[in-house]
Amino acid sequence: MDAGGKKKSCITLNIMKSRKPFAFARVDHDRESRRGFPEVIYCAGKSPAQVIAIAREILSRSNQLLASRATPELARRFCRVFRRARHHSDARMLVVERKPIPKRGGTIAVVAAGTSDLPVAEEAVVTAETMGNRVRRFYDVGVSGIHRIMSIRQELQRCSVIIVVAGMEGALPSVVAGLLDKPVIAVPTSVGYGTSFGGIAALLAMLNSCSSGITVVNIDNGFGAAFAASLINRQIS
Amino acid sequence: MDAGGKKKSCITLNIMKSRKPFAFARVDHDRESRRGFPEVIYCAGKSPAQVIAIAREILSRSNQLLASRATPELARRFCRVFRRARHHSDARMLVVERKPIPKRGGTIAVVAAGTSDLPVAEEAVVTAETMGNRVRRFYDVGVSGIHRIMSIRQELQRCSVIIVVAGMEGALPSVVAGLLDKPVIAVPTSVGYGTSFGGIAALLAMLNSCSSGITVVNIDNGFGAAFAASLINRQIS
Amino acid sequence: MDAGGKKKSCITLNIMKSRKPFAFARVDHDRESRRGFPEVIYCAGKSPAQVIAIAREILSRSNQLLASRATPELARRFCRVFRRARHHSDARMLVVERKPIPKRGGTIAVVAAGTSDLPVAEEAVVTAETMGNRVRRFYDVGVSGIHRIMSIRQELQRCSVIIVVAGMEGALPSVVAGLLDKPVIAVPTSVGYGTSFGGIAALLAMLNSCSSGITVVNIDNGFGAAFAASLINRQIS
Amino acid sequence: MDAGGKKKSCITLNIMKSRKPFAFARVDHDRESRRGFPEVIYCAGKSPAQVIAIAREILSRSNQLLASRATPELARRFCRVFRRARHHSDARMLVVERKPIPKRGGTIAVVAAGTSDLPVAEEAVVTAETMGNRVRRFYDVGVSGIHRIMSIRQELQRCSVIIVVAGMEGALPSVVAGLLDKPVIAVPTSVGYGTSFGGIAALLAMLNSCSSGITVVNIDNGFGAAFAASLINRQIS
Amino acid sequence: MDAGGKKKSCITLNIMKSRKPFAFARVDHDRESRRGFPEVIYCAGKSPAQVIAIAREILSRSNQLLASRATPELARRFCRVFRRARHHSDARMLVVERKPIPKRGGTIAVVAAGTSDLPVAEEAVVTAETMGNRVRRFYDVGVSGIHRIMSIRQELQRCSVIIVVAGMEGALPSVVAGLLDKPVIAVPTSVGYGTSFGGIAALLAMLNSCSSGITVVNIDNGFGAAFAASLINRQIS
Amino acid sequence: MDAGGKKKSCITLNIMKSRKPFAFARVDHDRESRRGFPEVIYCAGKSPAQVIAIAREILSRSNQLLASRATPELARRFCRVFRRARHHSDARMLVVERKPIPKRGGTIAVVAAGTSDLPVAEEAVVTAETMGNRVRRFYDVGVSGIHRIMSIRQELQRCSVIIVVAGMEGALPSVVAGLLDKPVIAVPTSVGYGTSFGGIAALLAMLNSCSSGITVVNIDNGFGAAFAASLINRQIS
Amino acid sequence: MDAGGKKKSCITLNIMKSRKPFAFARVDHDRESRRGFPEVIYCAGKSPAQVIAIAREILSRSNQLLASRATPELARRFCRVFRRARHHSDARMLVVERKPIPKRGGTIAVVAAGTSDLPVAEEAVVTAETMGNRVRRFYDVGVSGIHRIMSIRQELQRCSVIIVVAGMEGALPSVVAGLLDKPVIAVPTSVGYGTSFGGIAALLAMLNSCSSGITVVNIDNGFGAAFAASLINRQIS
Amino acid sequence: MDAGGKKKSCITLNIMKSRKPFAFARVDHDRESRRGFPEVIYCAGKSPAQVIAIAREILSRSNQLLASRATPELARRFCRVFRRARHHSDARMLVVERKPIPKRGGTIAVVAAGTSDLPVAEEAVVTAETMGNRVRRFYDVGVSGIHRIMSIRQELQRCSVIIVVAGMEGALPSVVAGLLDKPVIAVPTSVGYGTSFGGIAALLAMLNSCSSGITVVNIDNGFGAAFAASLINRQIS
Repeated sequence: MDAGGKKKSCITLNIMKSRKPFAFARVDHDRESRRGFPEVIYCAGKSPAQVIAIAREILSRSNQLLASRATPELARRFCRVFRRARHHSDARMLVVERKPIPKRGGTIAVVAAGTSDLPVAEEAVVTAETMGNRVRRFYDVGVSGIHRIMSIRQELQRCSVIIVVAGMEGALPSVVAGLLDKPVIAVPTSVGYGTSFGGIAALLAMLNSCSSGITVVNIDNGFGAAFAASLINRQIS
Repeated sequence: MDAGGKKKSCITLNIMKSRKPFAFARVDHDRESRRGFPEVIYCAGKSPAQVIAIAREILSRSNQLLASRATPELARRFCRVFRRARHHSDARMLVVERKPIPKRGGTIAVVAAGTSDLPVAEEAVVTAETMGNRVRRFYDVGVSGIHRIMSIRQELQRCSVIIVVAGMEGALPSVVAGLLDKPVIAVPTSVGYGTSFGGIAALLAMLNSCSSGITVVNIDNGFGAAFAASLINRQIS
Repeated sequence: MDAGGKKKSCITLNIMKSRKPFAFARVDHDRESRRGFPEVIYCAGKSPAQVIAIAREILSRSNQLLASRATPELARRFCRVFRRARHHSDARMLVVERKPIPKRGGTIAVVAAGTSDLPVAEEAVVTAETMGNRVRRFYDVGVSGIHRIMSIRQELQRCSVIIVVAGMEGALPSVVAGLLDKPVIAVPTSVGYGTSFGGIAALLAMLNSCSSGITVVNIDNGFGAAFAASLINRQIS
Repeated sequence: MDAGGKKKSCITLNIMKSRKPFAFARVDHDRESRRGFPEVIYCAGKSPAQVIAIAREILSRSNQLLASRATPELARRFCRVFRRARHHSDARMLVVERKPIPKRGGTIAVVAAGTSDLPVAEEAVVTAETMGNRVRRFYDVGVSGIHRIMSIRQELQRCSVIIVVAGMEGALPSVVAGLLDKPVIAVPTSVGYGTSFGGIAALLAMLNSCSSGITVVNIDNGFGAAFAASLINRQIS
Repeated sequence: MDAGGKKKSCITLNIMKSRKPFAFARVDHDRESRRGFPEVIYCAGKSPAQVIAIAREILSRSNQLLASRATPELARRFCRVFRRARHHSDARMLVVERKPIPKRGGTIAVVAAGTSDLPVAEEAVVTAETMGNRVRRFYDVGVSGIHRIMSIRQELQRCSVIIVVAGMEGALPSVVAGLLDKPVIAVPTSVGYGTSFGGIAALLAMLNSCSSGITVVNIDNGFGAAFAASLINRQIS
Repeated sequence: MDAGGKKKSCITLNIMKSRKPFAFARVDHDRESRRGFPEVIYCAGKSPAQVIAIAREILSRSNQLLASRATPELARRFCRVFRRARHHSDARMLVVERKPIPKRGGTIAVVAAGTSDLPVAEEAVVTAETMGNRVRRFYDVGVSGIHRIMSIRQELQRCSVIIVVAGMEGALPSVVAGLLDKPVIAVPTSVGYGTSFGGIAALLAMLNSCSSGITVVNIDNGFGAAFAASLINRQIS
Repeated sequence: MDAGGKKKSCITLNIMKSRKPFAFARVDHDRESRRGFPEVIYCAGKSPAQVIAIAREILSRSNQLLASRATPELARRFCRVFRRARHHSDARMLVVERKPIPKRGGTIAVVAAGTSDLPVAEEAVVTAETMGNRVRRFYDVGVSGIHRIMSIRQELQRCSVIIVVAGMEGALPSVVAGLLDKPVIAVPTSVGYGTSFGGIAALLAMLNSCSSGITVVNIDNGFGAAFAASLINRQIS
Repeated sequence: MDAGGKKKSCITLNIMKSRKPFAFARVDHDRESRRGFPEVIYCAGKSPAQVIAIAREILSRSNQLLASRATPELARRFCRVFRRARHHSDARMLVVERKPIPKRGGTIAVVAAGTSDLPVAEEAVVTAETMGNRVRRFYDVGVSGIHRIMSIRQELQRCSVIIVVAGMEGALPSVVAGLLDKPVIAVPTSVGYGTSFGGIAALLAMLNSCSSGITVVNIDNGFGAAFAASLINRQIS
């Protein structure tokens, strides 16, 4: 359409590429000492190059690396660079453990209402395990068949923290918490349609539970629930 | 307060008062033949005089009268006019039954999650009874103590329609419906605070239930749930 | 970019694949005895492999199988495995009926406001028929031409339950319910644009109907409406 | 509690009182020539003194005065000052007509769904009449008894503009517009409870009507609907 | 992938295809006599085959056909079947006019705030012209340069109805209506980002205008605004 | 209107009064063994008589009683009946401790952003203390003066669980959690105006915190936060 | 109901009263040096005693005191204690100026759309003046009469910052900003009804303005707008 | 594709193409004199041809051109036409500066909370620089590591206006504003997931900041923040 339309005619400027990594990120190396775990990379909205540069920076001083919301494409590129990386595809997470954190405290239970909630539940499992916790899975125990929950009650009571993952009407945490004297962290998921509003229905149910003492994290935030559970579990000997 | 402040100086015009009742209402006398029950008066937003005028009109052709959302003040005035009226103060309803409708069909169960849900549950009870149904109450059986529901399961299974009234997280209908092969009509209530948003949390939970076949009515609409239950129950011999 | 970028370098872990089906699902085999119909598979958010594994498990003990929200791709794979499967493409449903449930009770009417509402209406039809009900369709009878509804009034009155499917302003259930003494289950659809907000306008209209006794299900939930209608219809001899 | 707590110790400053009326209002005297009717006073949020001062200013150059959302208390004070004022208490309006505008154009119909919608309908009636239009009222013709609308169809078709006032599910405008070839202006009202959300349900229904050509005004805005209808009607000879 | 994976093994059922057109649509042939214009096809959510079948049915009795929200793909197929069809690609509309409606009444002005609002404005223009109205366009006159509106004031005042199309903050109708004594129909568009919420910001601004007498249609509903304007304009001689 | 308007003419029926306490409540006596603390009475929406009846029932088997959201009027009546009751008026709570629970575990910190957040913070303090925890208060340390938080950092790090109470923009939990390796439970309050939407702004901020591991409870739910903190703290020796 | 019901039987505990002021507030004395003005008291949600205690603390080190959202009752009590206090009743503000800040920089214009917006506009005026700015008022210049804005354009252009206060559709800032090269700070007010949603309509309009460079504060936040304007104005010599 | 399917049969009409540029745009050439900078092109929703035509028109009278929200595809086409154009790909902006505006006033700081916020921050940087301002970047200083902000406090205090860009909980502006006596303009970004609601969580936090004097722009509106900052900065000598 334009003879001689050489690309040169367009001067493209991109701070991300033309500058040093530190132009876009200040890795908080002090975080491991303050919070007990190094900075975790939230991959959404970052280019593979950015994720890899930040990961390199973190691993220059830490033995652990956790990256969440990793696409398959990112995972492929990441694993080429970091040979010890593991890609948990269900959980959409990347993990590098040069020296695993020894297991401490009690056991964290991850309970999921339905099969569609598994990506979020697995994000919680991978996070909790990488942070040095023992984890047990209890999947597909939604309230439409209440006997499934009753049958695992004793096992849950033996855990120190319970993460409950549920979409749709988000009723499962209320039932579970009503049976136990352990802290329950509820994770609403975006599973559902129509008036589930991408997880809002479940979130509201969890915030308004008639069972006392449930705390809640953001929709689909399996990572955050496991991080909180780990902070609790570490203090339990 | 104002010397010579004669009211005459202000010409007040009010269609409600200066005209005949028919200026503001066209009573649908045909409704009883079409729908099996005469027009029900929704009192909110109507003056006592209006409610009484409409009630007179309805009773000129029907043996039953039901009025919902009646304030105590309205009830007092109403009962002075209609000697056979009963005021169900919990339910905020007024009933006139010149000739009660004979009981038909099966039994309607009214299940309520907590004590605060009772006004709505009682609205359902009074409506269902006035429309000629047998009713059983099951109150304060919320999911924070799941054994309470399990213990009434057999009794519920013997009913033909189940109305479940719940506020807060609205989880009770999911659990009840999962146990039975009877139609469950869920009534969200405005019980709760903060993110219950006046009953929206409960409503969304009910609309998104993982237990199949729950249908839902408006927040605090005990009347509507009972009306629907009655339409179902009448067909069951 | 990376010499020898062999895939091996990336250790991928996936609970869905590496474990047994029971890692992600606990089929509720008791459901058929409790609720009168086996577990129904909601396909959204499940992989074809998961759907097929769960279907196998259900069919190991039941004669019926119903799966909703099936994509064409899933349907193709499903039908290769289950030879007796039928794919209702309008309804986005998969059905396996080894021994059809005999027809019982009255007839369920499925009324739809417009042509665009048909996928949801057909989901209701297929569900109701598979659950052993007689069904009649009344399509494209929206309120912009009110005579269309008036002309089917007598036929509707002969049915035992009426499912009304409508998007946009969702006015049809109010008009239909005002004409009959049968239970009306309203299904809002996501048909519309702008302030229809994906079906919320229709949902709110149905929840706030001035015609008494309408009950409502989630947006686009033809399946749920038919499930509820079937629970009602079974009790009517 | 404080010896000598004389009021003097508190210096109170109030721009509303200490300055001239023009400190708080610039009456748009040119409006009558531009828009065909003088500025209308929206009383909500204004003190009686402010309303009266603005009214005086308007009447210094116009023969008509219309004030909406007047409380009974304001009306009392207003009528003491303006002897020719009429207070339409249903409509919450104050009118001063020194020389009524002659009737022009066709007739405006004001149709209301239920008795509770009357304050809004009357606001429309009073506005339209004051602006020089012939008006006909059709009240309590909601869609739960559709025959009521059918019976007034011919009368409506003879009007030039139809204002339809409805709360709850707001279905009436769709039915009315579907029957006529006249412009329909829909007014949602805040009548209802729960998910009517103070009139939002009705508003959304009206904006999403499947009947073409309905236009909509703000919730409870009977005044605005009549103003628009009057601008239309004036052009019709 | 599956030996013998013959398609036959999958029985596909599709009501849309296997039945007659009348299985999915009841064309309202009476509409032209009631409303002055035949049924208009809203193409979204309908297959090309459905649109064409409905169009044939309408044209079997009418001389005009209007179809909105037509994709380019649909337009191509449609134009192959109906040789006289015109495709207004900006407006996303298809028109067949066997015998154009003669121009009547005054002129309809279509005013648009910005260039991005043109698809909606053109939908209004095409609709109004097809329905037999004279139309004038006034584009790109948003309030950030208020002199642009002032300069067209006299021309607008000579029109009988003003359609104002605006996205973002939707302020243009308030300014236009404040200058004229003609009816203003406001059309919010989904132009904007972030808190424009797909046109809600503009819609709310229009519903809350401080200029009296503006009426509003659904977001992006240029068709509806023009339909309403045409019902008004037809009555003006 | 009615000579001799004797009250008798009105038959009032009230299930709350005419039946036994068990008509409206089923106290869950098993809860103390399951959850480690007896049922807590949420007073909102219950009559004083109901609260007192339920309290009697609970105290018939437990040594502790906690009642939240108690109005001053209820407190007065309650304290007349239960001589050992204490009324925490800031916290709107009633406490009866026949035999205080011995202090166990670590210390719970209650941090509040501003003076207006105190009622919620005090609800957390009273709950935590009654449930057998040591508590420390840190009030008025909002982020507009960040040095206030920095100065208490060491003290917070010595606690085992941190409850952070904040209204308005709800930023305090993010800052606090970023400094510590202890679990942080965030409580949004309804302090604010306009777009604080009764606490929604603060709630959303807390759910979306960039500091990992924060969990959240309902708006103004100081009780729930303390209950959760107590379940955590009990496990820490 | 209880013989000898002495008040003593109820032990009331109240942290607000029983402890020192510092139990509920940590006055940020450093703020004046950091931000150029001492801490401002937001009175909503604080008791008169609390406000007075905090005011004393602030005045122990500063010459200025500003308190917003003061009720008349609070003002009366406040003025008894602080003899130099002035109560701006329109603005709902309390001011103590021991030594007024000298006027600096340019002039701040406060523009208000309608008479009902004055309380918010006056809050801005009082704040700006107390913080040492010259202020000019331009009231009742809403867009329904656009000539009113045009007539003050030159005066506005001579000011250094423009605060524009508007409710309803919030269109005024767009028009004003389009005329000037000065920073415009928009303040939405809660003036309006129905879909104004307490100021949200105006807020959204302001955030989505087609006029570049408008910044916005919370609904009814005249104080915040003036604070920002003052930070700007101080830098202008 | 279709033998004989000649395109001729479809008459396509497109106002955008068939008419002159002025059919869709009226460039506001007076804007540079009124507002200090020529019209800026918002590219979203405009075709490349439209953008280029408008750009030509602007450059016929101005030396600067700024276009926002440019896709890479648009940039490519644009740069072929305008040889001096620069494409800032991070910022999604196109700039033509025939004669750069000389730097005036103080320095504008652009502070960003996280790496994902950079596209918005860069939009602010490019806008501010093109409008003749000195700019400093401070990136990745979110509140989860509060020391990062503390370390740049002195540098920020030396700037004249601070733009703070943040997604998720949007807490950064509160902390920054609490430390300085400079105007802070907050830009919420759509970074986040679940209840971040595309930037609403951050927006609300910023509108409800407890730090006085923050003003806010639309979500992701880096351009608007910089435009406002520039209007401020120009006045500071």
